[in-house]
Amino acid sequence: MIESDKKYVIGIDFGTDSCRALIVNVYNGDEVAVGVSFYSRWKEGLYCDVRNNQYRQHPLDYIESMEEAIHAALSDLAGEEIASICGLCFDTTGSTPALVDCDGIPLALNPAFVEDPDAMFILWKDHTAVHEAKQINTLIKERHLDYLIYEGGTYSSEWVWSKVLHVLQTNPKVGDAAYSWVEHCDWMTGLVVGNTVPEKMYRSRCAAGHKAMWHEQWSLPSEKFLSELHPKLGAMLPHLYTKTYTSDTKAGVLTAEWADKLGLPEGIAVAVGAIDAHMGAVGASITPGVLVRIIGTSTCDILVADKKEIEDRCIEGICGQVDGSVIPGLVGFEAGQSAFGDIYAWFKEVLAWGLKSVPDGEMKQKILDGMLVELTREAEAIEPTHRSIVALDWLNGRRTPDADQNVTGAIAGLTLGSHAPEIFRALVEATAFGSRCIVEHMKEQGLRIDSVHAIGGISKKAPFVMQTLADVLNMPIRVVRSEQTCALGAAMFAAVAAGIYPDVSEAIQYMGTDIESEYRPEEKRHIVYENLYKKYLELAKLSENIKSIHD
Amino acid sequence: MIESDKKYVIGIDFGTDSCRALIVNVYNGDEVAVGVSFYSRWKEGLYCDVRNNQYRQHPLDYIESMEEAIHAALSDLAGEEIASICGLCFDTTGSTPALVDCDGIPLALNPAFVEDPDAMFILWKDHTAVHEAKQINTLIKERHLDYLIYEGGTYSSEWVWSKVLHVLQTNPKVGDAAYSWVEHCDWMTGLVVGNTVPEKMYRSRCAAGHKAMWHEQWSLPSEKFLSELHPKLGAMLPHLYTKTYTSDTKAGVLTAEWADKLGLPEGIAVAVGAIDAHMGAVGASITPGVLVRIIGTSTCDILVADKKEIEDRCIEGICGQVDGSVIPGLVGFEAGQSAFGDIYAWFKEVLAWGLKSVPDGEMKQKILDGMLVELTREAEAIEPTHRSIVALDWLNGRRTPDADQNVTGAIAGLTLGSHAPEIFRALVEATAFGSRCIVEHMKEQGLRIDSVHAIGGISKKAPFVMQTLADVLNMPIRVVRSEQTCALGAAMFAAVAAGIYPDVSEAIQYMGTDIESEYRPEEKRHIVYENLYKKYLELAKLSENIKSIHD
Repeated sequence: MIESDKKYVIGIDFGTDSCRALIVNVYNGDEVAVGVSFYSRWKEGLYCDVRNNQYRQHPLDYIESMEEAIHAALSDLAGEEIASICGLCFDTTGSTPALVDCDGIPLALNPAFVEDPDAMFILWKDHTAVHEAKQINTLIKERHLDYLIYEGGTYSSEWVWSKVLHVLQTNPKVGDAAYSWVEHCDWMTGLVVGNTVPEKMYRSRCAAGHKAMWHEQWSLPSEKFLSELHPKLGAMLPHLYTKTYTSDTKAGVLTAEWADKLGLPEGIAVAVGAIDAHMGAVGASITPGVLVRIIGTSTCDILVADKKEIEDRCIEGICGQVDGSVIPGLVGFEAGQSAFGDIYAWFKEVLAWGLKSVPDGEMKQKILDGMLVELTREAEAIEPTHRSIVALDWLNGRRTPDADQNVTGAIAGLTLGSHAPEIFRALVEATAFGSRCIVEHMKEQGLRIDSVHAIGGISKKAPFVMQTLADVLNMPIRVVRSEQTCALGAAMFAAVAAGIYPDVSEAIQYMGTDIESEYRPEEKRHIVYENLYKKYLELAKLSENIKSIHD
Repeated sequence: MIESDKKYVIGIDFGTDSCRALIVNVYNGDEVAVGVSFYSRWKEGLYCDVRNNQYRQHPLDYIESMEEAIHAALSDLAGEEIASICGLCFDTTGSTPALVDCDGIPLALNPAFVEDPDAMFILWKDHTAVHEAKQINTLIKERHLDYLIYEGGTYSSEWVWSKVLHVLQTNPKVGDAAYSWVEHCDWMTGLVVGNTVPEKMYRSRCAAGHKAMWHEQWSLPSEKFLSELHPKLGAMLPHLYTKTYTSDTKAGVLTAEWADKLGLPEGIAVAVGAIDAHMGAVGASITPGVLVRIIGTSTCDILVADKKEIEDRCIEGICGQVDGSVIPGLVGFEAGQSAFGDIYAWFKEVLAWGLKSVPDGEMKQKILDGMLVELTREAEAIEPTHRSIVALDWLNGRRTPDADQNVTGAIAGLTLGSHAPEIFRALVEATAFGSRCIVEHMKEQGLRIDSVHAIGGISKKAPFVMQTLADVLNMPIRVVRSEQTCALGAAMFAAVAAGIYPDVSEAIQYMGTDIESEYRPEEKRHIVYENLYKKYLELAKLSENIKSIHD
């Protein structure tokens, strides 16, 4: 291949704290440059109220960090290389909506609302709309509506309608000024192609299907339903959308203005955006039968299946089922564990209580910093038996199967000889049992899972956890090499929108990252875990029982 | 009352680590002097093998510490006061048997066996005879024998037949030399009255009934049964006993030899001995309706009831039911929790793991020493709710109801916000729920319990635990003032044997100790605990379920 044959695409990933821009060779997937920029207002803690779970992000944070990240990435490239960039695509967190005016401009960019958190993007993990989520669920139940059958049966306070309704109900000034709303991923795309008009901009199938109760059969929820929640919500419907787009669709081309601002070639293809986890699954080379797990503080689990296999069936008890949300033409499924790495951090916090009388300083910090490493070292040396401690991983409620925020975690099998590393081992096994529970549930619902591709912090940093996961699942776990799977997935879609590949499955073939390591199940341990898993299921029943007592 | 009217008795209590002699005024219960002496060989760890749960005590340890303790107590008395001592009685741990020759001399006092642990007293907590206990239980089950119906249904490795059988099976040299066996409490009595001949000495109803399957209906188990376990065991039966005695019986008088050695008046009455917990209950003024709880690392719970109330009924699932084992004429019941204070110590150990990298020294020691105090301080400030963490106290198995060493402890209701003091509070509540479980079980079996008298370390040192116990039981808990209730109970029996009182109930009236403090239940908390107790029962079911999975 000669030098001039090189072609690049750029994937832009907006995470919770920062924006990263990844420049990828479209022919071989080489990640040639990356730029990262942290959101400056967010970093200062502005517009957030942690005690009330209020997390807001200013649109200027997004614009400024995008410019900085892209410039940083481009600084590693020669001029002719930059000229060879032919496509761009965004992924963002979601549901992260903002109220907008009739031009699709987030209200926080209007001088009247520049400091009003309700006029900004409401981050995925914002939980201010708990009350509104209840209202929505109650109304759906009362009216026997089907809106949630593909979204796991319960509408979340983390999702767009709850959040928009919350602002309408609690901040009439912002509510009155609002004409429509946008998801973060759609707004970024609309911005750089010069099409943010709410009725006309390209809306992501992924965000719409997983977060806004959009479905091909009925489009968005009816005006009657929305008006009953709040008249203004119904009034917004005509300013929204009926059609949605998968990310292999070209949403437009980069405008001269944004080409100039970003230092990119004018007129390059811009693909429809999507939510980060779904793009990450693509970046991790998802294909039917491969469960992609993003394993960090919690997990997000993505699976795809042929439409023929699914037909019109509704897969119960998962977080969402959306045609084309991951790979166009395949049905995308989302599931997850509400706590994973967070459980290990929790146990460290419990133990750290014992250190509170140790004066702050280097020694204490060293002990705290090394605690999980040391727990892991000791736990790894313990061989599990049929009499081992067993734990239940629902310390942050349960996401899948059958989301329930009110169930809790548990530990059983304790004796006077049980020590901290043994409990830690049980907690690690519990997160693996929670994973097995999801896998079994999906299989029972007729979905095929042959192996697991793992991405996210834990998959790279915690080999003991990954081995335990392989042993419990009795399935190979493959850790994907790329550290930027979300941005890489976006870059693949950029390559499709730029016409390099006919579809994203072909882009995966050429641009896909390789496997960094593989964890193979150990037969002997799996046999023990088969038995302990039965105890895990007993703990699960217990947790339901004690919940029903306190309810 | 004039000076010369003073009369004293002496109660001698052999605990796990030491002997204490308490001199008590028979007319008002004043504890006028106490002497304590630790077992010197035991203190050095001789004859024990902790890893194998082998705990043995040399008879010389008992003799030497008895002499030292009595001399220490007497050193506080004037000559005419010593001359006014009119009775003596022993209580000891149990079952703590020794193999003896035809004169009733423990084999370890024979020069041939002076260093052989199997020729010594086998302490109550020795668990070397686990295998033999199984043999005994299996044979009883196979032959459908009734021997265990008054001893809780399962023969323990802590009890005399298991221990004797173990020595016969594993140490033929000692076994061949053995003619009979004695319980510690009976041997002390026999020794000082000059009657240790195995067939003639006075045997305690309490030890025989609770530990040796003795019952009025059938006396000891049959020779056929014992011979089937081991021929030598059957051969021992004629060298044992058919009749047993309650502690209001005078076993004899102090011989000139022992009066001289101990510095006590010759010819004073010596009462039949008993096991410490049962004497402790008498020292704590037990009466029908009052449950006496000895609360320390574990609990021992003693109750008495009128024979008329019980008739011939067998109370199921407790540790023992013996006519006269506590108060002659009343039926004595023994129950208990396998772990109580041990559970708090366990949690401290779990947390102390986090301190292992802190260098040993004053600071670390101070933190460890203060940890339970600090946990208590913080736990006390947490108000329990219907959603509180709930724990199950079976970390050392379950003693009552229905002894089972294979069930385990558990903690449920955990969230990512659960911190160490909250877990500690749940563990304290768990020990109280375990107590409630025993109380409810006894009540269901038709026994009356109106209030609780508490003795033992925890009752004096841990007001938070005691208040929680009152709140959970919804019953007043009265803490008995005397620090020496076991020795005091023995002293009461000494007064009866000396003819001062016609029976021990009258001795209790005059010599009984007063109440140091009373914990009254708080209605508000009790209501919350009613709900949490339902969850405790769910945890109990869980523990049974997971046990059946690993079995």
